[in-house]
Amino acid sequence: MRHLDAQAIEDIAVGAAVLGTGGGGDPYIGKLMALQALETYGPITLIHPNELDEEGVVIPAAMMGAPTVLVEKIPGTRELMATFELMKESLSQPVVATMPIEVGGVNSMIPLVVAAQTGLPVVDADAMGRAFPEAQMVTFHLDGISPAPVAMADEKGNRMLLYPQDSIWSECFARSITIQMGGSATAFDFPVQGRQVKKSAISGTLTLAERIGRLLREKQGKGSPIPDLLQELGGWELFSGKVSDMDRRTVGGFAKGKACFAGMDDWQGRELEIRFQNEYLIALEDGRPLAMTPDLIIVLDRETGLPITTEGLKYGARVVVIALSCHPKWRTEKGIATVGPRYFGYDVDYIPVEQLVEKVSRPS
Amino acid sequence: MRHLDAQAIEDIAVGAAVLGTGGGGDPYIGKLMALQALETYGPITLIHPNELDEEGVVIPAAMMGAPTVLVEKIPGTRELMATFELMKESLSQPVVATMPIEVGGVNSMIPLVVAAQTGLPVVDADAMGRAFPEAQMVTFHLDGISPAPVAMADEKGNRMLLYPQDSIWSECFARSITIQMGGSATAFDFPVQGRQVKKSAISGTLTLAERIGRLLREKQGKGSPIPDLLQELGGWELFSGKVSDMDRRTVGGFAKGKACFAGMDDWQGRELEIRFQNEYLIALEDGRPLAMTPDLIIVLDRETGLPITTEGLKYGARVVVIALSCHPKWRTEKGIATVGPRYFGYDVDYIPVEQLVEKVSRPS
Repeated sequence: MRHLDAQAIEDIAVGAAVLGTGGGGDPYIGKLMALQALETYGPITLIHPNELDEEGVVIPAAMMGAPTVLVEKIPGTRELMATFELMKESLSQPVVATMPIEVGGVNSMIPLVVAAQTGLPVVDADAMGRAFPEAQMVTFHLDGISPAPVAMADEKGNRMLLYPQDSIWSECFARSITIQMGGSATAFDFPVQGRQVKKSAISGTLTLAERIGRLLREKQGKGSPIPDLLQELGGWELFSGKVSDMDRRTVGGFAKGKACFAGMDDWQGRELEIRFQNEYLIALEDGRPLAMTPDLIIVLDRETGLPITTEGLKYGARVVVIALSCHPKWRTEKGIATVGPRYFGYDVDYIPVEQLVEKVSRPS
Repeated sequence: MRHLDAQAIEDIAVGAAVLGTGGGGDPYIGKLMALQALETYGPITLIHPNELDEEGVVIPAAMMGAPTVLVEKIPGTRELMATFELMKESLSQPVVATMPIEVGGVNSMIPLVVAAQTGLPVVDADAMGRAFPEAQMVTFHLDGISPAPVAMADEKGNRMLLYPQDSIWSECFARSITIQMGGSATAFDFPVQGRQVKKSAISGTLTLAERIGRLLREKQGKGSPIPDLLQELGGWELFSGKVSDMDRRTVGGFAKGKACFAGMDDWQGRELEIRFQNEYLIALEDGRPLAMTPDLIIVLDRETGLPITTEGLKYGARVVVIALSCHPKWRTEKGIATVGPRYFGYDVDYIPVEQLVEKVSRPS
């Protein structure tokens, strides 16, 4: 265990937005919330899953909704605590920690706010190893863990406690409630025991995010940090170019659409299209996939290497698109059924990014 | 207090469907559920509100959703008990009774099923004195009582406990959950104390329904019972004719539409239009209202006098349309704001049915 200082929080917010593949909310908003909570309520303790009591309950803390809404309807600490208390009161076992359900700009920070307010530690793990748009897209679901109870709240004081039959129903109900709540809401689900975190969560993702954030910070003003980042993470550059077209709509509680990029530098004359649903999900060149979900597709600012979210991407922005291999848990049969390209309606079979990048004609 | 036998249940189901103004579900389905519960679980006790302990909690039990769905997706006793238990466990005070939230074919029977299963008495009262389509349209709302907690369940085992800020939010969330649950669901709201029932509910509506049902039963085969019914209830015949057009859609979780009638007998050559949202809400002749919400517009079979619900009304059906004055609670400023014609989008000011029928040219 260790305490997270302001610098660590800033680094985690940036690094989590990289791993968040465009989703999980604006890292700037998340960072401000966590820094204010640190200042107001005191230290935030990070623990490794191995430090957890086997039986103690961990409450993942997160926001649900379209990132396009989340940037304008900023979550308050009051509804986070209302959600936490509602969940806690419904449980019979003691709560020993909180954790992120996904790594992403806002959703990596929400558990830090809850930790500061409650005095509970945050577990250095999450249930995606990235961000995904839907509630059942978690490693807990792959292991058959029930999401119930799910606690939700909004800024108007409305609160809900859901006991859905499974993760798919949970997504269905929570999404429709989120829409009624104005497009974003708190949604704490999958209260899990320590032993379930150890077995089913993806360990070390907050410290990985911190390492990424630190690398990007330390390289600022010293040329593009992207080559170093790719070396650190073992990823691939998919494309370099500028946004030539954006089509983004907030529908069914999601930010959905596609972005087109015109190649620059070595990629001059080529075109890339990325389709997204809160997160970047598939990257295509002339209809041929270069990378696809569940592998990570990440859009970075060409100069600073800082991550650009799906709701922050603008016409004309100069970017480098990179890809990372996802956690092996997602490459199982159930993993692909849950978050593979066909689930999102893309008519292609999943091919790991390592295989795809080998086939692509790459600038030498 | 007295026990309700099978005959009383049958009479209440029919009479409640008359007072239900076309909504509240099919009386036949409700009756079968209650009769089966009586046979399986034993006696159902009816008590007057005055017999209630002041502090004891009464849980109103009801279904939510479009009647068009409810006739095909029949509620089961298992989800009723799941809803009751979820609500009960969330309350700190003892539960002493159940009651109908509205009088209507199914929703007058649901509390009888719950009473048989739990052994609790049913209160002879409801919170509408008729049926209305939305959750905030209850006398408890007029008196500023909170609807929370709201317990919901479906046949798939999904359960929810809602703490909405007010009755309007309650309707908004519960409706959207009902739609996700397939168009109908259990929704128990407004757990109230005995003293709140005494002050805010409308007393005696189950025994009134029973009296209506008995009158219709005893008159079967002896000519139209409608004149006797009008005398008993102090109502007016608005029209007699056959259904010449039906436009009914299930939208936003409601059965909405309009029915047109061609005059027969004394009304030959005249036409009537009734618009509905689960319940019959406004009756118009050449665009001029003959009766409007919150007054009761009731469609009866021309021969038997039995009530016809909005989802049961068919092209060619021979009917008599009658109207009754609503309870005075609905004629207050807040009452009219909550359930008056403008709330439903009809561009007319509320005029009591007593005044409207005086102005209409009536067959002599």
